[in-house]
Amino acid sequence: MIPKDRINADNNTRIDTHKHDLDHARELLARTNIDADAVIIEVARFSAAAPSWALGTGGTRFGRFPIGGEPRTTEEKVDDVAAMNALTGANRSISLHVPWDNPDDPAALKQYAEERGIAFDAMNSNTFQDNPSTTRDGAISYKFGSLCHTDAAVRDAAVEHNHYCIDLGIKLGSKAITVWLADGTSFPGQANFRGQFERTLDGLRRVYAHLPDDWRMFTEHKPYEPQFYSSVVNDWGSSLMLAHGVGERAMCLVDLGHHLPNANIEQIVSRLAMAGRLGGFHFNDSKYGDDDLTTGSIKPYQLFLIFLELLDAGEGRMPDIAYMIDQSNNLKDPLEDLMQATDAMQIALAQALLVDQAALADAQQSNDPALAQEILQGAFRTDVRPLVAEARRRNNAALDPIGTYRALGYRVEKIRQRGAEAVSTGL
Amino acid sequence: MIPKDRINADNNTRIDTHKHDLDHARELLARTNIDADAVIIEVARFSAAAPSWALGTGGTRFGRFPIGGEPRTTEEKVDDVAAMNALTGANRSISLHVPWDNPDDPAALKQYAEERGIAFDAMNSNTFQDNPSTTRDGAISYKFGSLCHTDAAVRDAAVEHNHYCIDLGIKLGSKAITVWLADGTSFPGQANFRGQFERTLDGLRRVYAHLPDDWRMFTEHKPYEPQFYSSVVNDWGSSLMLAHGVGERAMCLVDLGHHLPNANIEQIVSRLAMAGRLGGFHFNDSKYGDDDLTTGSIKPYQLFLIFLELLDAGEGRMPDIAYMIDQSNNLKDPLEDLMQATDAMQIALAQALLVDQAALADAQQSNDPALAQEILQGAFRTDVRPLVAEARRRNNAALDPIGTYRALGYRVEKIRQRGAEAVSTGL
Amino acid sequence: MIPKDRINADNNTRIDTHKHDLDHARELLARTNIDADAVIIEVARFSAAAPSWALGTGGTRFGRFPIGGEPRTTEEKVDDVAAMNALTGANRSISLHVPWDNPDDPAALKQYAEERGIAFDAMNSNTFQDNPSTTRDGAISYKFGSLCHTDAAVRDAAVEHNHYCIDLGIKLGSKAITVWLADGTSFPGQANFRGQFERTLDGLRRVYAHLPDDWRMFTEHKPYEPQFYSSVVNDWGSSLMLAHGVGERAMCLVDLGHHLPNANIEQIVSRLAMAGRLGGFHFNDSKYGDDDLTTGSIKPYQLFLIFLELLDAGEGRMPDIAYMIDQSNNLKDPLEDLMQATDAMQIALAQALLVDQAALADAQQSNDPALAQEILQGAFRTDVRPLVAEARRRNNAALDPIGTYRALGYRVEKIRQRGAEAVSTGL
Amino acid sequence: MIPKDRINADNNTRIDTHKHDLDHARELLARTNIDADAVIIEVARFSAAAPSWALGTGGTRFGRFPIGGEPRTTEEKVDDVAAMNALTGANRSISLHVPWDNPDDPAALKQYAEERGIAFDAMNSNTFQDNPSTTRDGAISYKFGSLCHTDAAVRDAAVEHNHYCIDLGIKLGSKAITVWLADGTSFPGQANFRGQFERTLDGLRRVYAHLPDDWRMFTEHKPYEPQFYSSVVNDWGSSLMLAHGVGERAMCLVDLGHHLPNANIEQIVSRLAMAGRLGGFHFNDSKYGDDDLTTGSIKPYQLFLIFLELLDAGEGRMPDIAYMIDQSNNLKDPLEDLMQATDAMQIALAQALLVDQAALADAQQSNDPALAQEILQGAFRTDVRPLVAEARRRNNAALDPIGTYRALGYRVEKIRQRGAEAVSTGL
Repeated sequence: MIPKDRINADNNTRIDTHKHDLDHARELLARTNIDADAVIIEVARFSAAAPSWALGTGGTRFGRFPIGGEPRTTEEKVDDVAAMNALTGANRSISLHVPWDNPDDPAALKQYAEERGIAFDAMNSNTFQDNPSTTRDGAISYKFGSLCHTDAAVRDAAVEHNHYCIDLGIKLGSKAITVWLADGTSFPGQANFRGQFERTLDGLRRVYAHLPDDWRMFTEHKPYEPQFYSSVVNDWGSSLMLAHGVGERAMCLVDLGHHLPNANIEQIVSRLAMAGRLGGFHFNDSKYGDDDLTTGSIKPYQLFLIFLELLDAGEGRMPDIAYMIDQSNNLKDPLEDLMQATDAMQIALAQALLVDQAALADAQQSNDPALAQEILQGAFRTDVRPLVAEARRRNNAALDPIGTYRALGYRVEKIRQRGAEAVSTGL
Repeated sequence: MIPKDRINADNNTRIDTHKHDLDHARELLARTNIDADAVIIEVARFSAAAPSWALGTGGTRFGRFPIGGEPRTTEEKVDDVAAMNALTGANRSISLHVPWDNPDDPAALKQYAEERGIAFDAMNSNTFQDNPSTTRDGAISYKFGSLCHTDAAVRDAAVEHNHYCIDLGIKLGSKAITVWLADGTSFPGQANFRGQFERTLDGLRRVYAHLPDDWRMFTEHKPYEPQFYSSVVNDWGSSLMLAHGVGERAMCLVDLGHHLPNANIEQIVSRLAMAGRLGGFHFNDSKYGDDDLTTGSIKPYQLFLIFLELLDAGEGRMPDIAYMIDQSNNLKDPLEDLMQATDAMQIALAQALLVDQAALADAQQSNDPALAQEILQGAFRTDVRPLVAEARRRNNAALDPIGTYRALGYRVEKIRQRGAEAVSTGL
Repeated sequence: MIPKDRINADNNTRIDTHKHDLDHARELLARTNIDADAVIIEVARFSAAAPSWALGTGGTRFGRFPIGGEPRTTEEKVDDVAAMNALTGANRSISLHVPWDNPDDPAALKQYAEERGIAFDAMNSNTFQDNPSTTRDGAISYKFGSLCHTDAAVRDAAVEHNHYCIDLGIKLGSKAITVWLADGTSFPGQANFRGQFERTLDGLRRVYAHLPDDWRMFTEHKPYEPQFYSSVVNDWGSSLMLAHGVGERAMCLVDLGHHLPNANIEQIVSRLAMAGRLGGFHFNDSKYGDDDLTTGSIKPYQLFLIFLELLDAGEGRMPDIAYMIDQSNNLKDPLEDLMQATDAMQIALAQALLVDQAALADAQQSNDPALAQEILQGAFRTDVRPLVAEARRRNNAALDPIGTYRALGYRVEKIRQRGAEAVSTGL
Repeated sequence: MIPKDRINADNNTRIDTHKHDLDHARELLARTNIDADAVIIEVARFSAAAPSWALGTGGTRFGRFPIGGEPRTTEEKVDDVAAMNALTGANRSISLHVPWDNPDDPAALKQYAEERGIAFDAMNSNTFQDNPSTTRDGAISYKFGSLCHTDAAVRDAAVEHNHYCIDLGIKLGSKAITVWLADGTSFPGQANFRGQFERTLDGLRRVYAHLPDDWRMFTEHKPYEPQFYSSVVNDWGSSLMLAHGVGERAMCLVDLGHHLPNANIEQIVSRLAMAGRLGGFHFNDSKYGDDDLTTGSIKPYQLFLIFLELLDAGEGRMPDIAYMIDQSNNLKDPLEDLMQATDAMQIALAQALLVDQAALADAQQSNDPALAQEILQGAFRTDVRPLVAEARRRNNAALDPIGTYRALGYRVEKIRQRGAEAVSTGL
């Protein structure tokens, strides 16, 4: 655990500069009648779940270079998230991935996490790998799909595994399950598109039937990988068709890296929100495909535009959906990578909150794209870091999470405790 | 008009070789129990509408290089399509574009076309340009959209224009209207995505309300161009949402060039067919964007896979939807370009008909992608040209349309008649 | 002409706030030992040439919606650039496009421009359209290419036209010619790749032979449009091969919109600079293809990274190459569009100048990507607008160019002077 | 080993049909004065090296589903290639990957392979993973690159490893080394582009210095993966710069999957051939990225166009460069996948040989793209399978490799011999 006084001590060395900068930001905002405190409060309210599978070093099919000190158990993953949350104040939950996370005593794990201020966000099932616990001890294989499979026994096993994840989630206090399916084909003719879709729809209905009333189910679209010709839930259109076919609490999840080149993701966010089916996000960034890079590291303006759509959907506030990070931290310290992502999201949110919505509506009504651009860029070009730092401070977190994290020597300590060879489960 | 005896004479010089090749194809098909005549009949049944706007030389924003002898009137466009159909036997209708085509006497035009064996396929409205007849004599402008516009007067004018097109189409015997909208934005913030979509949906409902009972309305998705940040009907998901919101006879039209890079178009065809909303096609080919190249000139295997999906939707036959060509014939003689497109479609259809569906279903059921590939490639690699030529011959058309067209000197004759400077309306 | 006192008057209403914000920026920079004045001086030194062809409303193949009051002559184009430069202080030259600009009396035009403080940047030849002045009065056509053409007469005409542009440029004081070629193919097999390349290389050598010693020649790569299968100068690799084959002062020009999806443009900038052949830029922005949107309106972080590479090439200062804007201002007032572009470039430059190069080099040396990201994002997230405004102020320009431009009613005045129907030459 | 009499017996069941079809093909070709035997001879001459790393089941970062019976040693890999070559007659060599293949007794391995008719194609070094044999027993790591690394010790180790591969290759009779580098960055600012390039160039020179006189070195460009922001050898332009900087026998290798979306790969082939630096290929196919699917399974027309360029470079024959397959056989039996690839290449070659080059040159000279397309499509649409089968027959291989392979029960036998759990080294 990271002691609060260590954070406070570090904050104290920065507090004067922070206050000075915050005053300037306040003044700047006041000129356009933006209430800095309202911005800070909304930013402070925001939280993004940490992915349990990205607390260790990620890899590609070509290799993996572990950093050491990675969490060896789900409890240690909770420890890492708690440490991160102590610094950011904005990672108050963890999203588990079964069977990589499969606690023997869920109640004990729940208590363990609660004591550390960490809740359980959406559960994630895994039918893209073969594991004895998901394949009826190897009786079936997911090589050719799970819910879309031509063999009913495979489909049944996949449904069972999802039920298991829901049951486990109930014990942990989760309220949602994310069903990401690797189902699809790598070659033309390998399967009938319609048959695959209909079987998948049927399977999702069976998973959904197991949901408690206060749970939601997320389908997550992705055009390719690990299949390279087609994917069953290939885009938001297919995801929405599935949600409509399944039931009211079936929602669509948007992973920023799961789109074809040049896709306008912010418009997709708007579409799904309009349809009442925007369930949540897997945040990351990418230049080429599902690169799973740090959120905001490649296209920060796109991230800002996405947060603008979220505020549009929430009528000025962030809507109550699932905000999760999904990155593959191949090169950086996973915790630093996740903290940079969290920071980038808070910055994008603060920028989006700075947009003068009345002026923007006027510019839109009068078809003045130059003015609309001035308004958006005006918000984006403003230095909102003091506002975000203040939101963190009010959440009893660090003014400079990465700086404090490094000063604390967290990774070194964990390598000492857990070993240089400790490798986390996950991708 | 192209005299039938000229075609017959040209065919006679090729008929022996043709029969010999056809016999070989028959024998080849018989080995896998494919009935060559059933293939020929289905190919002969197929027809693709010619676009009135692509009978002249097309251009880009950088320039246009007319070929001469282009049709100066809608009647001359009908002449060109009739000439083409005489050669291909597979272009039995023309699709008009208003106000580029705006006959003073629709009844006379209808009779003119009927006498030449040409029917009127879907009408096309135009709200992406300003024309006195569509802008209430310049009172409004479509610069910032039509049905999506923030100004009700613009939306009203766009609805009126579509009504006009329907009324005209009724007189011509058309049964459908294609509403391609250039509506969208070129800059972030220029418009509210949801507002644009809702206004467009409302406008389409008003257009639809004007439809006769036996008509269909097509919405056509496109991700970008002429707007470069967002498009209201950006993808098949948005197109389907509009169709669902409008009514039962609102259908989605697929233009092969209107997709993001790497999109799996054949899967989109399957999705729309499954949803019961596949209304038709604008056929063309492309390497980069909406290049509007000759159908089948760049990705013939993709075309084959699309026809496979159509046969899947039609349970072994081509479903009764609208098949239209939409190309921009910048470099080739437009008629040659369209005939090459028609030939490519017939070839793709014949190849698709050769697929052993029972064997394919077995390979799919047993998850044997290598075998499924053998089956598809086996059909694709077969030389189906004799089957397509025979379908043409049975339609009283040319065995070798391009060869006969060139031998006839059609273009030279038209340049003589219409002038070297004759330029057709259109893009 | 925009009177200086009008600008000063407008500045005076903003000066107090500006100075206050500038002081804060100064203080912020001082913390990391960045000299604000050095940044301001380098920003103030920067100038981007305005494209004569983008001073009117641009269009697509689907249509064009002119704004009115567009410059009718090259002199009026100079007027517009002078007005813009009065506001930005950073558009001190104009780049002409022949034959759209083809002055009868070049010496008079030169004097006219000098009196308004405007110089002549690179000349642009046009062999992608047919014009009597470039086609030997229609004796040849560029339909199938210019320098790459199979017909020597076409190649000769294209060379002649480029010589003409050079001769004209000499009289105007220009020092470079940009040879953008639309040459390529739209269909596989249309031409032999190697033959086209070799003929183009030969033609460029002939153009180059006509260059004065203090001139440079730019080749500009583009993968597609207006040809849709291949382009002769398709990418930087081909452009560099041509430059190497032509001579020392043959340089490569980078248009930001002329790349395949997902291309890393900043790396291409680095490669060309490393090869000693980076000649200049056509600045714009895009989401899909050669969208020609306002620079910085879609991917501002990419623009920042490009300026970082330029500073790397210039060892901390902007290298002495050609900085030109190339946009298609379809929806905005062209002057506002160009001023927003200029502002975005200055902002990106200021941000790039804020990067702590020593700290970055350390992070790179020690393979610390998280720290490198902190350094880059720290610069990018800083509000540099006061620094840019100060650079403008020192150039006797406007603190808020768009605001002052609108307050001045420039466009309304020009519509009154030039007419609502005045349409500029260009794309 | 697959006994020749088994193949002959299987061929005998097909020989009559084959001869009949071949006669028809001969007759068809004779009409356009194409000599069928010349085609067959050139197809029979062609051979593609099998990749040792793709003889087992491939995987993605999400998982791997082994097929069983995979080769456990390099000798067993040679066995598999020999079996495949017995069926195709067109896979006469294997390309090894060190340290996945690292024979204790190279001379013995060489003899083993020779006895089975298999030669050793290009050696492949591996500096994208950490292995004790390549990292000086873990003293260094390739996490942040190899030849581009900031640490000289890492660069030295990478050079040493490449020297080792060359030395090993010399003993095996190989004549080339392929240096595929995973070097690059995943985040802006992580490294200096120019620094990385210069260090890589220096390293390649040191590798090259170790080459025997009759060896060639291949650099292989790839835009991304496993790095997701930039790659040192990102495209053919960078690869060519490296080749020019290194020496005459430094050549560029084209992997079909290593390009940005929509790239015109056949033009790149032409460019490298024109520069005299086309060293060879890694054949595969893809729809999205480096999907490593079966060659010809997605874009067979592109494959045909590439072979057309090869014949252009070889003046009618296939040039003497390295033809290698590089696929990731995730779903299919690896040997079936590789045989389908080999078949697809032979088909594309035969189609390319059918192009009437004189007629094509005429169409190009007269700028007749419609006719050029007729010529290319005429060749592509011809059923060349009898010609390819005859080429196989003359090489004493199978008329129907997949059919015979399945009839032989090779995989079942290998699972019995090697075990269902046998997993091959590789990706």
